[in-house]
Amino acid sequence: MAEDNNKATIIVFSGDMDKIFAAFIIATGCAAAGMDTTLFFTFWGLNAIKTGDPIKAGSFLGKMMGIMNRGGINRLNPSRFSFGGIGRILFSKMMSDKNVASVKELRQTAIDLDVHLLACKMSMDVLEITRDDLIPEVENIVGVATFVKDAANSKIQLFI
Amino acid sequence: MAEDNNKATIIVFSGDMDKIFAAFIIATGCAAAGMDTTLFFTFWGLNAIKTGDPIKAGSFLGKMMGIMNRGGINRLNPSRFSFGGIGRILFSKMMSDKNVASVKELRQTAIDLDVHLLACKMSMDVLEITRDDLIPEVENIVGVATFVKDAANSKIQLFI
Amino acid sequence: MAEDNNKATIIVFSGDMDKIFAAFIIATGCAAAGMDTTLFFTFWGLNAIKTGDPIKAGSFLGKMMGIMNRGGINRLNPSRFSFGGIGRILFSKMMSDKNVASVKELRQTAIDLDVHLLACKMSMDVLEITRDDLIPEVENIVGVATFVKDAANSKIQLFI
Repeated sequence: MAEDNNKATIIVFSGDMDKIFAAFIIATGCAAAGMDTTLFFTFWGLNAIKTGDPIKAGSFLGKMMGIMNRGGINRLNPSRFSFGGIGRILFSKMMSDKNVASVKELRQTAIDLDVHLLACKMSMDVLEITRDDLIPEVENIVGVATFVKDAANSKIQLFI
Repeated sequence: MAEDNNKATIIVFSGDMDKIFAAFIIATGCAAAGMDTTLFFTFWGLNAIKTGDPIKAGSFLGKMMGIMNRGGINRLNPSRFSFGGIGRILFSKMMSDKNVASVKELRQTAIDLDVHLLACKMSMDVLEITRDDLIPEVENIVGVATFVKDAANSKIQLFI
Repeated sequence: MAEDNNKATIIVFSGDMDKIFAAFIIATGCAAAGMDTTLFFTFWGLNAIKTGDPIKAGSFLGKMMGIMNRGGINRLNPSRFSFGGIGRILFSKMMSDKNVASVKELRQTAIDLDVHLLACKMSMDVLEITRDDLIPEVENIVGVATFVKDAANSKIQLFI
């Protein structure tokens, strides 16, 4: 079981732009090195695989979370220097000046390199996110048992 | 050494409710999959294994930290949307509406599944936390060497 | 490939003093246990291996980041309780009272124990950090491919 695997499994818990950026960079790096790579999105990390439309939610709580999380991947803020969105713009501008790919482009690169995108069922329930809120490239909606099995058979496991 | 192990070792550094929640979910998932699972609590993560009584500390600094960290596991705030405690209440309410266990219940589930709870000695010294401040289910108070040995023999290692 | 390795690879993404502290503690613990240990500094984590001089940067954006990140390892703030620097002073004082090494001393211990310090090229480009901004003990400036290769051959991989 340990010898023939060549897998990498990364939990994306954070919704901060810079951490999601790092997650996609590492995942594409693993995939480019020939590893079978999985990104497991949970909690705030789910923002990275949303369509960009506001969350459809029936309840007041869900709506409140929907408002707070509105916008999907292009509205993520870095974990530092937010200043009401300035940090994000500044960061994006610097990356653009340096010809570094945007988070959305990086996500597409990950998809092109066959990185598996999985979403955490329980987090989706808590945050009232449905399958329709997620981009179609999300391969499956799974529980923690799937993550544990994947991670235990991986050479690389990270929590971001 | 690498073949017969079936272990998971997770460092819980964060004191944010949502991250501690994630740590317990992953730990119970590992234990349910038959893995010998250890949670190693350090720095702010120690809040997750406190009795809930305010920290007893002799010095002004310790008291100040005690005040700032007062309350143990039911007073943890999520890493986003704190708003002076509203985020925690909102988050708990959403979890409760969805029949997701509370952090305290999850901790009990982890204990019932024989997840090992270890506390970091150095962090306890720095934050002036004593054995009496921790729940009796904490198995041992250890140093980084114990963590390294455990982690090096584990299939899954995460820093949360 | 999996049997004769005895390596640990830690990504240091965070610039928070307490997390950098944890990273150096774990790294020295791994090295003391005889593991071939690498710290891979990326994004805000690069602050931990700067010389302490303000960043030299030509552009307005770089200058702005330079101002925000001024000061290197002795100016890092913990992830909680910053209060404009008071958290850092408080934390350092508590560590000092308890005879726990400062972050700078810990970094030196890591270097003395032959922990490899690597810097992420892409992050340096984005944040306009040059080789001259980093301490001479930084062994190499590398890309994600180097990290992936190291991590895939390590017993311990963590993202901090």
